[in-house]
Amino acid sequence: MSTVESLLRELRSEMNERFANHIAPDTINRYVNETYVTLHRTAHADQQLPDKVRRFTIDRLTALAQTTGTIGKPVPEVLFLCIHNAGRSQMAAALMAHHSRGRVHVRSAGSRPDPAVSASAAAVLAEVGVTLSDAFPKPLTDDVLRAADVVVLAGGADACPRVSGPRYEVWELPHPPGSDLDAVRAVRDDIDARVRALLTELTT
Amino acid sequence: MSTVESLLRELRSEMNERFANHIAPDTINRYVNETYVTLHRTAHADQQLPDKVRRFTIDRLTALAQTTGTIGKPVPEVLFLCIHNAGRSQMAAALMAHHSRGRVHVRSAGSRPDPAVSASAAAVLAEVGVTLSDAFPKPLTDDVLRAADVVVLAGGADACPRVSGPRYEVWELPHPPGSDLDAVRAVRDDIDARVRALLTELTT
Repeated sequence: MSTVESLLRELRSEMNERFANHIAPDTINRYVNETYVTLHRTAHADQQLPDKVRRFTIDRLTALAQTTGTIGKPVPEVLFLCIHNAGRSQMAAALMAHHSRGRVHVRSAGSRPDPAVSASAAAVLAEVGVTLSDAFPKPLTDDVLRAADVVVLAGGADACPRVSGPRYEVWELPHPPGSDLDAVRAVRDDIDARVRALLTELTT
Repeated sequence: MSTVESLLRELRSEMNERFANHIAPDTINRYVNETYVTLHRTAHADQQLPDKVRRFTIDRLTALAQTTGTIGKPVPEVLFLCIHNAGRSQMAAALMAHHSRGRVHVRSAGSRPDPAVSASAAAVLAEVGVTLSDAFPKPLTDDVLRAADVVVLAGGADACPRVSGPRYEVWELPHPPGSDLDAVRAVRDDIDARVRALLTELTT
C-alpha cells in the first residue's frame, strides 16, 4: 500500500473511534480523504503535512458535530477569515486565543490559502509573546463557517458566503504588507485593538 | 431564508432525488454545502456560480459513486490537472472531449483554481473549433481523483497526491504563457499532439 493510503487508513480508523458517537462513518471517511487532498494541494512540500491533515480533520469534524448539536459549544466560536490565511486572519486568531485564555474558541481560514503562514506575521507576533508555530493556512469550509457564532472578515470579504447562523463582522485592514516589518507591526496593533474589543463584547 | 440557503436547499433536494440509489443523504447534503463554499471562494463574482455549483456537485457525486461502484464507467475516465485549471488542463480536457467524441470521459481540476478560465486559452481553442464556454476552474478533490483511470499532470505535478488506482502521466509543458497568443498556440498544439496519442492508446 502506498504511503498516502496507509496514512489515510490510519486516520480514518482514529477518526471513526474519536467521532463514533457523533458522525456517520461514511461522512468521517469522506472528511479524512477530502481534507488530505485539500491541504496537499497547497502544503505538499510541508514535512508536517500528515499532522496538519490530522488536526484540520479533527477541527472540521468537531465543527460539523457542533452544528448538528452532538458536540457542544461551551464558549463562543469565532472564525477569522482573510484571503491567504497566512497573515491577517492568523494574527487575529492567535491574538484572540492569547487574550481570551479559553473564554473564546478560535478558528481561521482563507479563500485562497497559502502554502505556509507569513514569516513577517510570525516575527511581529513573537515580539509580543504570541506564537504562530502551530498555525497553518486552511481553506474556508462549510463546516467551520456554520459552527461559528461570529465570522470576522479580515480581508477578501466577498469570498465568504453569508449563511444563516453566524453574525458577520467586516474589518477593513490594509492589504498584506509583505516584509516591511514596521507596516506589519502597525497591522498587528490594529488587529490587537479590534480583538480586545470583540473579546470584551463576547465575554461581558 | 437567505438566497444562499434557499439555493442550497433546492440543490440538496435535487441531488437527493438524483443520487438516491447511490449515495447516503448525509453525504449528498455535505457535498452540496461544501461544493458551494469551495467554488464561492474563487468564483464569487461569477453570475453563473449557482449553475457551476450544481454541475460540479453532480460531477463529484458521480465520481464518488463510480469509485464505490454503484455508477459504472462505460468509457475510460481521464483527469487533467494543472495549477490554476484555467489554461493547460482546460485545453487538454476540451481537446480530449472534442477528439474522443464520447469514447473517453474527461474531467479537469487544479491545485489553486483561478476565478475563471484563461481568455487566451479560450481564444486559441476557438480557432480550432473547440469551445471553453462551459468550462470553469475547480479544485482537485479526492472523489474525481479516485474515479480516474488516467491522471494527466499537465502542471504542478507535486500538488497531486499519488493514490492507489489511477495511472499517472506527467506532461512537461511550458508555464502558462499569459497573453502572448503565439506562445499559447504553441502550447495548444503541443497538448493536442499528446491528447491524440493518449486517445489512440486508450481506444485501440
